[in-house]
Amino acid sequence: MVHADASNFPRGVLKTEAYAQVIEQASALFDGQRNWVCNLANSASLIWHALHSMPEPSNHANWAGFYVLDPTTPKQLILGPFMGKVACQTIKFGRGVCGKAAETAETQVIEDVHSFPDHIACDGDSRSEIVVPIRVGGKVVAVIDVDSTVPKAFDDEDKKALESLAEILGTSCDW
Amino acid sequence: MVHADASNFPRGVLKTEAYAQVIEQASALFDGQRNWVCNLANSASLIWHALHSMPEPSNHANWAGFYVLDPTTPKQLILGPFMGKVACQTIKFGRGVCGKAAETAETQVIEDVHSFPDHIACDGDSRSEIVVPIRVGGKVVAVIDVDSTVPKAFDDEDKKALESLAEILGTSCDW
Repeated sequence: MVHADASNFPRGVLKTEAYAQVIEQASALFDGQRNWVCNLANSASLIWHALHSMPEPSNHANWAGFYVLDPTTPKQLILGPFMGKVACQTIKFGRGVCGKAAETAETQVIEDVHSFPDHIACDGDSRSEIVVPIRVGGKVVAVIDVDSTVPKAFDDEDKKALESLAEILGTSCDW
Repeated sequence: MVHADASNFPRGVLKTEAYAQVIEQASALFDGQRNWVCNLANSASLIWHALHSMPEPSNHANWAGFYVLDPTTPKQLILGPFMGKVACQTIKFGRGVCGKAAETAETQVIEDVHSFPDHIACDGDSRSEIVVPIRVGGKVVAVIDVDSTVPKAFDDEDKKALESLAEILGTSCDW
């Protein structure tokens, strides 16, 4: 298979179908490959291209990627692979939406980041955000982070799909 | 600074100016941050957005990112952070354009990948490619890889600029 084909989603694909393809392609890519950098990089590409092929409002995603535990500083996240504009390099646990997801180990769906206390504005264009923790043995090892330029871009279906991906990533990579 | 601003290049910016901004922003981002995953992820974003703001043919880049030494397999590269469609996960030294750059420690500028012996078609849309080795103490630790959908997309100016970035990355990260 030409690998890039995994990122090709039909234009206007339904969210359910797009996420099913993300999960299927991710699972195939991770089979026999446990390197977390490699697997997160391809996952960011899958999420990005899936969202941009979906109808409104999903197609307004402006960042999709990962923060992982910073190996040099406890209780701190550091930037991992992503698609989008240059991003904040480190985030303390508890700070902003990513830091809250890391600290609480709970998914955060933020309809409007402007009303989120302590929002970290890496990109002033971002209006809504979803952050999903990746857990291994109950401990957060990374978070999936997706931003959108429109409010309320993420719903319960995004949450469930990204939580499924997070679960696969948790078990498929050597962290 | 809002970090995303680093990725904003004026539309149609001259190549010389765009690469100067890439080098300036990269150097600023790496100041005080030596994590290679974090620095490669932001570098891929800088390269991608710079190229897409440049005039023809540079704006046809369809992949920009990194392969690094595979920690589990000698003489093998593994996918690092990138922008673009899902990519091949591992590449043996000597195989394809990336493998040749890793093996020879020399930049490869390929005007038409269809005429390159042993080209690895991760994406059938790719037509030209530049791969620049990142060296530390004379040893290749990673390569910068950029693909374009048009032939002859990369010239000597791309080569010199990406070699400058490779040199900065070599000294700025803990590999």
